Amino acid sequence: MLRKIAFVVGNRAHFARVRPIIKYLPDNSYRIIVFEAAAIQDHGGVLDEINKITNNVSVLYTNISGSNLLTMTKSTGLAVIDLAVELVHDRPDVVVVIADRYEALAAAIAARYMNISLAHIQGGEITGSIDDSVRHAITKFANLHFVSNKDCAKRVIKMGEDKKNVFVTGCPTIDICRRLPKNDPKEIFISKDSGDYEKRFILGDNYLLVSFHPVTTEKNIIENVRNFRVLLEAIKIIGLQTIWMYPNIDAGGDILRKEILNFKSMDKVGKIHFFKHFNADDYLLLIKNSKCIVGNSSVGIRESSFLGVPSVNVGNRQIGRLRCQNVIDCSMDKNKIINAIRKQLIHGKYKRNEYYGDGSAGKKIASILEKVELEFEKRMTY
Amino acid sequence: MLRKIAFVVGNRAHFARVRPIIKYLPDNSYRIIVFEAAAIQDHGGVLDEINKITNNVSVLYTNISGSNLLTMTKSTGLAVIDLAVELVHDRPDVVVVIADRYEALAAAIAARYMNISLAHIQGGEITGSIDDSVRHAITKFANLHFVSNKDCAKRVIKMGEDKKNVFVTGCPTIDICRRLPKNDPKEIFISKDSGDYEKRFILGDNYLLVSFHPVTTEKNIIENVRNFRVLLEAIKIIGLQTIWMYPNIDAGGDILRKEILNFKSMDKVGKIHFFKHFNADDYLLLIKNSKCIVGNSSVGIRESSFLGVPSVNVGNRQIGRLRCQNVIDCSMDKNKIINAIRKQLIHGKYKRNEYYGDGSAGKKIASILEKVELEFEKRMTY
Amino acid sequence: MLRKIAFVVGNRAHFARVRPIIKYLPDNSYRIIVFEAAAIQDHGGVLDEINKITNNVSVLYTNISGSNLLTMTKSTGLAVIDLAVELVHDRPDVVVVIADRYEALAAAIAARYMNISLAHIQGGEITGSIDDSVRHAITKFANLHFVSNKDCAKRVIKMGEDKKNVFVTGCPTIDICRRLPKNDPKEIFISKDSGDYEKRFILGDNYLLVSFHPVTTEKNIIENVRNFRVLLEAIKIIGLQTIWMYPNIDAGGDILRKEILNFKSMDKVGKIHFFKHFNADDYLLLIKNSKCIVGNSSVGIRESSFLGVPSVNVGNRQIGRLRCQNVIDCSMDKNKIINAIRKQLIHGKYKRNEYYGDGSAGKKIASILEKVELEFEKRMTY
Amino acid sequence: MLRKIAFVVGNRAHFARVRPIIKYLPDNSYRIIVFEAAAIQDHGGVLDEINKITNNVSVLYTNISGSNLLTMTKSTGLAVIDLAVELVHDRPDVVVVIADRYEALAAAIAARYMNISLAHIQGGEITGSIDDSVRHAITKFANLHFVSNKDCAKRVIKMGEDKKNVFVTGCPTIDICRRLPKNDPKEIFISKDSGDYEKRFILGDNYLLVSFHPVTTEKNIIENVRNFRVLLEAIKIIGLQTIWMYPNIDAGGDILRKEILNFKSMDKVGKIHFFKHFNADDYLLLIKNSKCIVGNSSVGIRESSFLGVPSVNVGNRQIGRLRCQNVIDCSMDKNKIINAIRKQLIHGKYKRNEYYGDGSAGKKIASILEKVELEFEKRMTY
Repeated sequence: MLRKIAFVVGNRAHFARVRPIIKYLPDNSYRIIVFEAAAIQDHGGVLDEINKITNNVSVLYTNISGSNLLTMTKSTGLAVIDLAVELVHDRPDVVVVIADRYEALAAAIAARYMNISLAHIQGGEITGSIDDSVRHAITKFANLHFVSNKDCAKRVIKMGEDKKNVFVTGCPTIDICRRLPKNDPKEIFISKDSGDYEKRFILGDNYLLVSFHPVTTEKNIIENVRNFRVLLEAIKIIGLQTIWMYPNIDAGGDILRKEILNFKSMDKVGKIHFFKHFNADDYLLLIKNSKCIVGNSSVGIRESSFLGVPSVNVGNRQIGRLRCQNVIDCSMDKNKIINAIRKQLIHGKYKRNEYYGDGSAGKKIASILEKVELEFEKRMTY
Repeated sequence: MLRKIAFVVGNRAHFARVRPIIKYLPDNSYRIIVFEAAAIQDHGGVLDEINKITNNVSVLYTNISGSNLLTMTKSTGLAVIDLAVELVHDRPDVVVVIADRYEALAAAIAARYMNISLAHIQGGEITGSIDDSVRHAITKFANLHFVSNKDCAKRVIKMGEDKKNVFVTGCPTIDICRRLPKNDPKEIFISKDSGDYEKRFILGDNYLLVSFHPVTTEKNIIENVRNFRVLLEAIKIIGLQTIWMYPNIDAGGDILRKEILNFKSMDKVGKIHFFKHFNADDYLLLIKNSKCIVGNSSVGIRESSFLGVPSVNVGNRQIGRLRCQNVIDCSMDKNKIINAIRKQLIHGKYKRNEYYGDGSAGKKIASILEKVELEFEKRMTY
Repeated sequence: MLRKIAFVVGNRAHFARVRPIIKYLPDNSYRIIVFEAAAIQDHGGVLDEINKITNNVSVLYTNISGSNLLTMTKSTGLAVIDLAVELVHDRPDVVVVIADRYEALAAAIAARYMNISLAHIQGGEITGSIDDSVRHAITKFANLHFVSNKDCAKRVIKMGEDKKNVFVTGCPTIDICRRLPKNDPKEIFISKDSGDYEKRFILGDNYLLVSFHPVTTEKNIIENVRNFRVLLEAIKIIGLQTIWMYPNIDAGGDILRKEILNFKSMDKVGKIHFFKHFNADDYLLLIKNSKCIVGNSSVGIRESSFLGVPSVNVGNRQIGRLRCQNVIDCSMDKNKIINAIRKQLIHGKYKRNEYYGDGSAGKKIASILEKVELEFEKRMTY
Repeated sequence: MLRKIAFVVGNRAHFARVRPIIKYLPDNSYRIIVFEAAAIQDHGGVLDEINKITNNVSVLYTNISGSNLLTMTKSTGLAVIDLAVELVHDRPDVVVVIADRYEALAAAIAARYMNISLAHIQGGEITGSIDDSVRHAITKFANLHFVSNKDCAKRVIKMGEDKKNVFVTGCPTIDICRRLPKNDPKEIFISKDSGDYEKRFILGDNYLLVSFHPVTTEKNIIENVRNFRVLLEAIKIIGLQTIWMYPNIDAGGDILRKEILNFKSMDKVGKIHFFKHFNADDYLLLIKNSKCIVGNSSVGIRESSFLGVPSVNVGNRQIGRLRCQNVIDCSMDKNKIINAIRKQLIHGKYKRNEYYGDGSAGKKIASILEKVELEFEKRMTY
């Protein structure tokens, strides 16, 4: 009998890890459980994308509105409840969770408390902020670990995990990076996917991409606004066409979205274009062709290293993550950010670095998920 | 201004760790948040005990009835929600959670997701079962670690925790063990606290104490019943007066309670006495004076080692926990259990072993909680 | 295509209304959604009974432990959430809810908020306490009303419901009453179903049946205990063999169960036998053969009138319910209760009264549920 | 001792009923419990307005994101849970709920299940849709009824409520209507309150006001979009300056908001201005000065009748509500809507009608809440 695999997808980035895996799985062997932000994204969002690929989808509404620490925490609790009920309906043999966001832990708890085997993608990395706690806590629940590289494997094993359950597969998003079209499109058609409405403009080949998220552990949420404004000022002074991604729904996200609306309503020059989301292919293609990626998203460290795109990482959100040579770090200071970007613009493309994967993760993970002996108990080694 | 400390208490064992600490804290500096089993115990239960000591108590009803894996998981989700709301009302500076039960993780998540500092008692131990995952996951969230001994400290640090946040204090229940009355009471008065009803009998000085809980990760819940019956047969053959504790509310608990009722209704000899709970002092005194403690509770490994009481540990529930020389391990086989108990009865008392603490934990922990600089972010070391 | 009917069952009494209906429905046309008390009853409980009859069962764990007003209210909220998710999985055409307990309203809300047609059994009755509010609130949500008699129909219509949606079918439990075996068993074999353990004794033909539940709207929960003790004293003085049913899980139930345990442990005479539950057939047969039914359960007013069993109704719980000539009402006064019981013992059996149904409700309701045009909107008439 | 009154506020319209009441209450006698949409509105929203008036505010995050029937239902369940916990913290003597939205019932349940007295404003009205069921269900729970007029009182009493608990006070929003400034402002300054960003323009004295909400009981959510577009076409053809309010968060709200964004991005003429919200004074002043109010909001029937503003009510959402002579009803047909608006523009202002209140409701309700004897049980009369 086919093994039943459930992938738990809380946002667009999660699905970008899942899609390269399910490509190698028979359609009747898996189910996508969509929850949190992924369940409520606007039309044109990740849910539409998933529905195009498969009918094996369950949608759980677990996000409590408010975008603050309390609602983030309550949403996690509600997600545990809803996932538990869903797992009784689905009865998968193994649940796969991704990375380190607050809601991913809900899925890990639901699976393992109910004696279902758990696989984790992207364990052993380091970043900073609450994400570290979440990621390593999931590691302590997982029966199978699909990690990006040997450093991650080493860290997972050091935390007491059994070597035989740790697989260095690379990160599946690198699979997508590897398969991006070679020729750079001179005109980017930005369609409904982009959020508010259809919009088309010639991006040219000289643009920046910015992705800046709230830091949920900032003592003062206002700090996030201050930092957003510093970054905005810097980007304005650089003066290039810029694609700027909306923040995620974490605590503080609402207030940054407000800032964006304020800026948009007063913007005269119109060189900064804000977008809610792209599908993973378009997004990574936009990054690949950009002159520099700026912000505090993990994509500025992980995928950009494979793509060889110059990156300026600002603030503390990615503080612990191992960066390759394409990243310049920068505190939240306008002039420092400007200087760092200019330095990157002069430098141009870096050499491809396969630290986060070589493009074969999906196939490897699919094959292991199908065949490895599943355990429901864990033994740790010390 | 006084620092505000919130202790989260999910069961009687949790409060046995908390009581030796609050003894050293000013009454207006702490609050006890009671939830899960501790909130719903019968009158005479731990909640009554807590209410006698302090008025700073919040009671959260988070246990969803059913005593199965699904309700255990849903209860965890509901606990995250209720604790989050409670922490907004209380606004403590630091939250203290105990050990490794499923509900303790709910408290860790609620605290740290809301940027409140987290202290953890009993990190770094090893047992087996899902408890290991829960305990180490809490460690990954905790800012302060109060561990039982150097082995535990080493393990916590190996998992990436910063040495300066790990304190070898011993376990606070050992404080209670140290202060137990010296003279062995020949008659044990077992009152309302004992569960169903008032009962008084002369226990004498030749009795066993049994504590046997369901193993939630058993593939088949029936396995727990089978094991219960094996143990019961063994104890009947030993033929001594026996105090047998009811199981906890974990998945499988209901079915074991049913077994107890069945047995009670057919019991002719009446040497086995079942009890729902005692307060910690009475319980540890009963253990101290027993000839042997039998079962799969941690008390048969941890507190018994300090008390020098012979212990027979059955099955896998405590598989990884470091035991001192007073413990004989035993598979779930009737004859092996009988032989092990007989061996222990012949051996008699062991020497006190301070591996799990020397009786000064409460004072040490209280002092650190009051004075240590609290962090809200964590940095891990690798 | 077959219409899909979902019956929502929260306790044993609910299922006693549902069973006579599903008898007339094709097995693949309905589903039983079991929740609240019905989901967590001990083995031998109503869930076992349901599972014997059909596989179309969903079990939702919605009861939050504690048996107090807060947990009763929270359980209702959790039931709304779980039922909503379940209805998405099931997608029934019509949901059927029973009577007036707090959890029944949760089902009514879940169905109608999600635009599913709602049928209600036992609308238009009057009792007293919060039950009146719940029952009539459900009436305001229901699209179809299956009522016991013309008085109920009149009341439902007066509240603004459309005449064409109100069906006088009688109550389905009367169907069971009508079909009870004619010959009175002299020996009652009371088996595992009875709660704690197997028990067999000769009941004879001279016994009382007592059913006494907490009144959740008593200002002081202690009032319930006082009343319980008054009733117990009265029954002891009557001195007959007595079958006494445990109270339900409403707020206050725990404390009455405690009282029962206390009494049992001190009972010398042993004429009062406490039982957790019987299946509906056995229960109604026990009532039919009893000399008098005493307490504050609706069965002492509704089913007893059809069975012609003398009934003494105590306190306010059933204050508004229309009683037939077989009922003597009584305040919570020991001597008044004793006198009322004695009067009934002298009187003996009453004539059958078909006020609450004539035994054909199941067939009628099944037929309407299958064929009536379902509405999803409601128009009220004023 | 001062009686403690808790007002439960789920949206801006609720607070417009509460504000005229608390004006007459001592500040330490009441608390505003803010939940659902009111808790998550953007800055400048109703929560800011409330915080300016009093510090006695509790904010509960109970809205589950998604704006569909499932999330609406789940939000109701979560609201019951959160309100129950809040009422334990607050312990009010009486809870006041407003009107007929899905979340208001959650407050009614929480209060009465916990034996707290319940007052209801706006009972006995008729509209259509699920709102009727909700409103009358709340009536069945309420101990006190503050109704708009004698027709409402009659209906509430007919449903079995005791005459002595029904008070014809008028609706408190009419109090605000009565006190609006007399002189019509020629320039409307529309500030941050208006949603996205600050905006100022000369409205003049020749404009329409449109308020159109999704109908949650439409079989097909697409129906709501179709109707929105019909209305938009009609308004474009009328060609006047138009203030158009965003829809509420009910199921279907998201999709209408999307429509608005689509329209805004293609709008060349710019005569239609969309706004998220105004405070009640500004909103009612805008209505007062408008040439005609168009849509399916209750304000087009209730407040407009007192203000004498011509109103065109479209579709079924207000189907059962009693309208005064200022309202023309209209199906969702473009030409019919255009004709109805033109007819109203020609007619101009109507005479004030005090059917929904005379402007003294706040004072009357405050006085009754302070002095009336509170009941916790209900007796219904039939």
